Amino acid sequence: MNTPQRILVINPNSTEAVTRGLDAAMECHRAGGNVTIDCVTLKEGPPGIENQQHADGVIAPLMNLLREREGQYDAFVIACYSDPGLHSLRELTKKPVLGIAECGLLTAMTLGQRIGVIAILQKSIPRHLRYVAAMGIGDRLAAELPLEMGVVELSQEERTMARLIEVGRALREQHGADVVVLGCAGMAAYRGRLQQAIGVPVVDPSQAAAGMAIAHVALGWHLA
Amino acid sequence: MNTPQRILVINPNSTEAVTRGLDAAMECHRAGGNVTIDCVTLKEGPPGIENQQHADGVIAPLMNLLREREGQYDAFVIACYSDPGLHSLRELTKKPVLGIAECGLLTAMTLGQRIGVIAILQKSIPRHLRYVAAMGIGDRLAAELPLEMGVVELSQEERTMARLIEVGRALREQHGADVVVLGCAGMAAYRGRLQQAIGVPVVDPSQAAAGMAIAHVALGWHLA
Amino acid sequence: MNTPQRILVINPNSTEAVTRGLDAAMECHRAGGNVTIDCVTLKEGPPGIENQQHADGVIAPLMNLLREREGQYDAFVIACYSDPGLHSLRELTKKPVLGIAECGLLTAMTLGQRIGVIAILQKSIPRHLRYVAAMGIGDRLAAELPLEMGVVELSQEERTMARLIEVGRALREQHGADVVVLGCAGMAAYRGRLQQAIGVPVVDPSQAAAGMAIAHVALGWHLA
Amino acid sequence: MNTPQRILVINPNSTEAVTRGLDAAMECHRAGGNVTIDCVTLKEGPPGIENQQHADGVIAPLMNLLREREGQYDAFVIACYSDPGLHSLRELTKKPVLGIAECGLLTAMTLGQRIGVIAILQKSIPRHLRYVAAMGIGDRLAAELPLEMGVVELSQEERTMARLIEVGRALREQHGADVVVLGCAGMAAYRGRLQQAIGVPVVDPSQAAAGMAIAHVALGWHLA
Amino acid sequence: MNTPQRILVINPNSTEAVTRGLDAAMECHRAGGNVTIDCVTLKEGPPGIENQQHADGVIAPLMNLLREREGQYDAFVIACYSDPGLHSLRELTKKPVLGIAECGLLTAMTLGQRIGVIAILQKSIPRHLRYVAAMGIGDRLAAELPLEMGVVELSQEERTMARLIEVGRALREQHGADVVVLGCAGMAAYRGRLQQAIGVPVVDPSQAAAGMAIAHVALGWHLA
Amino acid sequence: MNTPQRILVINPNSTEAVTRGLDAAMECHRAGGNVTIDCVTLKEGPPGIENQQHADGVIAPLMNLLREREGQYDAFVIACYSDPGLHSLRELTKKPVLGIAECGLLTAMTLGQRIGVIAILQKSIPRHLRYVAAMGIGDRLAAELPLEMGVVELSQEERTMARLIEVGRALREQHGADVVVLGCAGMAAYRGRLQQAIGVPVVDPSQAAAGMAIAHVALGWHLA
Repeated sequence: MNTPQRILVINPNSTEAVTRGLDAAMECHRAGGNVTIDCVTLKEGPPGIENQQHADGVIAPLMNLLREREGQYDAFVIACYSDPGLHSLRELTKKPVLGIAECGLLTAMTLGQRIGVIAILQKSIPRHLRYVAAMGIGDRLAAELPLEMGVVELSQEERTMARLIEVGRALREQHGADVVVLGCAGMAAYRGRLQQAIGVPVVDPSQAAAGMAIAHVALGWHLA
Repeated sequence: MNTPQRILVINPNSTEAVTRGLDAAMECHRAGGNVTIDCVTLKEGPPGIENQQHADGVIAPLMNLLREREGQYDAFVIACYSDPGLHSLRELTKKPVLGIAECGLLTAMTLGQRIGVIAILQKSIPRHLRYVAAMGIGDRLAAELPLEMGVVELSQEERTMARLIEVGRALREQHGADVVVLGCAGMAAYRGRLQQAIGVPVVDPSQAAAGMAIAHVALGWHLA
Repeated sequence: MNTPQRILVINPNSTEAVTRGLDAAMECHRAGGNVTIDCVTLKEGPPGIENQQHADGVIAPLMNLLREREGQYDAFVIACYSDPGLHSLRELTKKPVLGIAECGLLTAMTLGQRIGVIAILQKSIPRHLRYVAAMGIGDRLAAELPLEMGVVELSQEERTMARLIEVGRALREQHGADVVVLGCAGMAAYRGRLQQAIGVPVVDPSQAAAGMAIAHVALGWHLA
Repeated sequence: MNTPQRILVINPNSTEAVTRGLDAAMECHRAGGNVTIDCVTLKEGPPGIENQQHADGVIAPLMNLLREREGQYDAFVIACYSDPGLHSLRELTKKPVLGIAECGLLTAMTLGQRIGVIAILQKSIPRHLRYVAAMGIGDRLAAELPLEMGVVELSQEERTMARLIEVGRALREQHGADVVVLGCAGMAAYRGRLQQAIGVPVVDPSQAAAGMAIAHVALGWHLA
Repeated sequence: MNTPQRILVINPNSTEAVTRGLDAAMECHRAGGNVTIDCVTLKEGPPGIENQQHADGVIAPLMNLLREREGQYDAFVIACYSDPGLHSLRELTKKPVLGIAECGLLTAMTLGQRIGVIAILQKSIPRHLRYVAAMGIGDRLAAELPLEMGVVELSQEERTMARLIEVGRALREQHGADVVVLGCAGMAAYRGRLQQAIGVPVVDPSQAAAGMAIAHVALGWHLA
Repeated sequence: MNTPQRILVINPNSTEAVTRGLDAAMECHRAGGNVTIDCVTLKEGPPGIENQQHADGVIAPLMNLLREREGQYDAFVIACYSDPGLHSLRELTKKPVLGIAECGLLTAMTLGQRIGVIAILQKSIPRHLRYVAAMGIGDRLAAELPLEMGVVELSQEERTMARLIEVGRALREQHGADVVVLGCAGMAAYRGRLQQAIGVPVVDPSQAAAGMAIAHVALGWHLA
């Protein structure tokens, strides 16, 4: 058996609970035993990435982190739904660097025709829409709708679940979404129940990105 | 350690050499030891899928094959760059079914901004373009150009390599492609050399699809 | 006076009532007396084409039918709003083959800026949206909404009319449609009343396709 | 037998030779005997419509002509590849008014995936491109290339034929067009030979528009 | 100090109150003292430009006006949200000619990601949508919604303000607009209050066009 | 007379010669005497912004600079064709912040239908294309082609002029551009001659951005 792959999932915000959520979400990929996935918190990050300044602000520390850890891992996942620093990090290393927004959306394209996205905050949506447009996949977007919940509310699991279902149903019924992407990191624990409740596939983007990272390492696309 | 995943890669044409090429291409994914990938030839298929009739004609036998094998595998890859029967097969099973055109293109979107595709035959290009448009990613396509080689020529390895490089360079230099997808199955053996020769990442779509299939199985998106 | 044109309209489902509806709808084109339009039921088809498997499943019998009848007709219309087998049939013959979805939508583009489509079932909409995207006309689509009526209900004329008006009004008022296409075959009898009720042009796609078929025969585009 | 349809084809430029060309082109539609097609020259028009001022300048006389003739015809075709006044004329009458650019392009969409257009003059191309964009079908356009011939040259039949073939081949070979539209009125006489020479379908837009006009009259879409 | 620039703003409708509104709206640009902006009523225009015939009908008198005044001004603004005659006028002169729809929308693109437009009348929306599509910016349009107010109502300031706020809120809340353009001329007086009420930037297109006209004159782009 | 506007143009690279070029380019806007435009070098910037790391790396110092100078100016221009930090800076201040890529492209949309862009380096083009896509104006882009000149060559004025003309002609003749944008800052000195040589309008994006900044200040859009 070969040496296991090593994947580093970086949470660009400083909230350890999000990193723990990411870590739990990675279990599905660890099942086979031939991949090691470590999740790390970017200590320099803000508690949450809620605006463009936050997203741009974490790029420099993300680059430092990549420089430090590059030798120890085969691929890197930026686990923030704004994919901060994605292209800068790709310039820094020949190893695969994947963003969760990119991979969550691309994966959703294999699961439905019209993608609904659930954002945490309304004010993040224009930033996300610029990114979807830059990816050239705007025609596949049904709509992006916000939970519009504060931090305190988000820590209440049942409240969050209820709101996710409410927004997920709006995406399906009012906007015609037949697949939904969670537009945030660290919420994979809600994925299964949400999927069951709204009746369309739900993608946790961090899981999607880790899956694509594993494939990239296997395939050696980073050599070019 | 968990039970290994089992992936079935189906070559919808009847040419065993293509299936052997697919089988060799899957080695990269087998390295970790926790996935079994079988490659099978659709005996009812034509020697090559060169037009819409061929593509439509293999759907019924593909569905029969899926019905027979569904219990033995966790996911299925349709290894023809026209993704014949993709949506019909998805209706037949709750397990993941992935097409190599879809996955090759989506994977390329993580490796460059403008995708060049190398087709075998000019006459397949309109069919492929309809598919790219249906995927909603036409803005990412730099161009699709044909090798326009006959079967005899294609069996000559050096001639094929030379022509791949010629077309790959045209995609890069004249059409601005910064990533190239092989628009066919069973040519993974050329991928590395082509990548080296033209200086941009080259995606073998069957390898890309198998990678996404493995991720889909891990993640259970098929449950919805 | 020349020999009259002969057009064959094929209902790919096995429901004779739909074929009778098609036949009645063709009267408008027969008025001049110089075109013969025959409507035929594909006996091998399912009672209705409700999913991708149905659409893909009728291609082989459609091709057989075309082979048998090719000598007797000048052009062929596939009268199912999924245009099953359109491109395969076009490869089989140099005579014009037209699909009702394609022609209904193209005709609607001469009657309004934003097209609303009325589907029978919600589950057909993603399939239709892939097709609209493949045609490259997604920017002209206001929305596609379903009647979501069962077979029994659809046989009740007044119930169907009422639901058509309800959905047609939603397309106009909530989605800004200024032209509506009936996303199904054999419902031309409702066209006039629906148009009057909702105040925007309503296109029966089978009538549109027969009209374009007549023009294609006159013009000899099939010779290339 | 019903009263024959009456279609008026209006040449918005004042060149009688163009009107004669249009008239000859209509023969294919007259074959059945149940349609009368008259071709008329807009005397107030310029010798050719070569810029936006020309296109805008003919709208008022076109409206006058429509007002005068409305009672005598069932449908109207504006036979200039800029479709001048199309939407104003549609407001003036409930009868169908069709433009040749619109109908030529829509018809081409049933004959190929990527449309090449042959313009007379380079300087008309931006105007045409704005129109293609307004129609929402830019993704289907392979390219529009000019003959760039002067009036004297255009009167030389063989010279014109040679140049049409040259540009048609460039559209096919360099831009991937698999159908070609003549971007001008009155050149239907070249259609068949050009089609034969370049090996893809060639659409004369005036013939396409007359065909769609006949269908519109048959179907009564103008009633809304 | 240089000679001040001279800008002519043309109201293509004959309603003097609109011209007065335009004149007042230009104050912001006159503040610096180095630009003269004159606003003129096109006497031949209709009281309001409400359909395509109105828009096309003013082109000839607009051209006459431009010919008469060309020597006295450095740039021209067509102050009607249909930009009538824009490209014809650009052919007539090498000096800058700008349309308020074009400039209002382009300016909005610097102020938000998704543009909402407030039209006076529903029936103008298809015309505006054709124009937005011709500009190639349809992906930035959230929605265009009408005030649907009659002339009498529009003269009631508080009623108009209330309706503007109602429609502006619908654009923001139901359609995700984060910038709003007033789809008409002469309503700049409402801009500030509307902006305050709905909480997103509001663009008066005439002010935007005058701003771009001043820049064009400064820069001499008209020389090409 | 009012207090003159004060605009700060920031060169995010550390090359003073570029700042001097910007300063000279601003003369056209200073002519009227009621605007003060200062050009400043971001000392922390790299000598040139040639990749994504450079673009992302200047955001933090740009934000610091904005914080320091915000009180002294009415609007800010980021004078790098990658518009680094544009959206972060917009969050920092209610005053207008404009990017030269955005404004150069939007301005070009008033001068032609298909925009050609001249980049310095090939490797910047994918980054620029992502940005054009995020703006939603990809359909207006004819092509972006690189000068592909080194720093030493770029300091040779005649060599640069010759290469600009060569690339500008390729954009016009081979890609159908009818307006050209200089995809870099500080090259306004070449604009007039290039425009004359290639016969289509040429936009210096820094001049365009300053023009739009002046208009934004006049109009107070920043208040929302």
